[in-house]
Amino acid sequence: MKLHNYFRSSASFRVRIALELKGLAYEYLPVHLVKGEHKQQEYAAVSPSMLVPTLVTDDGEPLGQSLAIIEYLDETHPQPPLLPSDPLERARVRALAQLIACEIHPLNNLRVLKYLVRDLKVDEEAKTTWYRHWVREGLLAFERELARLPRGTYTYGDAPTLADCCLVPQIFNGQRFNADFSGLDRTMAAFDACMRHPAFQKAQPSSCPDNEA
Amino acid sequence: MKLHNYFRSSASFRVRIALELKGLAYEYLPVHLVKGEHKQQEYAAVSPSMLVPTLVTDDGEPLGQSLAIIEYLDETHPQPPLLPSDPLERARVRALAQLIACEIHPLNNLRVLKYLVRDLKVDEEAKTTWYRHWVREGLLAFERELARLPRGTYTYGDAPTLADCCLVPQIFNGQRFNADFSGLDRTMAAFDACMRHPAFQKAQPSSCPDNEA
Repeated sequence: MKLHNYFRSSASFRVRIALELKGLAYEYLPVHLVKGEHKQQEYAAVSPSMLVPTLVTDDGEPLGQSLAIIEYLDETHPQPPLLPSDPLERARVRALAQLIACEIHPLNNLRVLKYLVRDLKVDEEAKTTWYRHWVREGLLAFERELARLPRGTYTYGDAPTLADCCLVPQIFNGQRFNADFSGLDRTMAAFDACMRHPAFQKAQPSSCPDNEA
Repeated sequence: MKLHNYFRSSASFRVRIALELKGLAYEYLPVHLVKGEHKQQEYAAVSPSMLVPTLVTDDGEPLGQSLAIIEYLDETHPQPPLLPSDPLERARVRALAQLIACEIHPLNNLRVLKYLVRDLKVDEEAKTTWYRHWVREGLLAFERELARLPRGTYTYGDAPTLADCCLVPQIFNGQRFNADFSGLDRTMAAFDACMRHPAFQKAQPSSCPDNEA
């Protein structure tokens, strides 16, 4: 398999975690978002929506959207599972993942921050305030949802799931903007547990070949 | 089952479509978003993240996040299926759904538009331009993704899927803001096919008991 991705992209990071959790080898193909490489013809041929990541299967089939890719990996390589087997529990884990992927991250990605500055003439301080606002509000909601679930080592239960694949990149992203993580006890305990797991270590931006830090 | 939802909420509309496609009866419990009912204690007890929709199962279990709810319905009531059986095809349908649910809709929901006006002091025209920009960019990407898939009656194939459950509410939403739908031939053909289907008719905002139009 090949993964077109960018070290700092949260959605790319989610898929890298899933690949590492499954122990699947892949070819790392960097797409430099800040240089706009995702909008060039070569990448648009792989991803018509011009978004990272794109997984290319061993049969040469390109797949976009991080959550769809991770569910594909989970269906085609079931061990270890990234979703519980019970439908209700699966729905709870998916909902936690979507609370990040549909409610927090879309408001804070590069193209949105660019629009704020370029089109709405928002200054640096207001841009950072916007960023922190959505991370804070979203993670408080995430923490409240966790509070009514049984406590485990990770976000849901004692093994990493799709929800952890989404949580960790969101925390990394928030740390870059000094977001407020106070009072997020369950959330941050799950994050800390993930960061003690070798798969999350291997997938993190500083481990990537295109890392610039 | 019970569905806490709001007639105009796109995420609620997605779940109503899925329930109608499955032929499942449900109790409609309105939550008035504009009046802020989702932030009141009564609803927060059902949905700690204070988002609509929430499905409450026959066993009294609350489930949030529209895509997670729809997959739960599909797993517990498999006929008619809302996802193909092949993993690669499932990934393609999920990716189309997420292209709307993770890339377009989050930028245009009520709380974001409120933030633009209240906190960033954006005027009405710039707010509308923001709205139309993300709908347009997102649907152009959606159309480009469709262009490399086999053509069918609906978004993917000849039966409605999860992708159609997401597409139709997004088009309704865009129509309210007079978004530009030109050149979206495949996308709008799928939308038109959906609107000839009774399930989509029954689920639409104007059919809802809390409809104010």
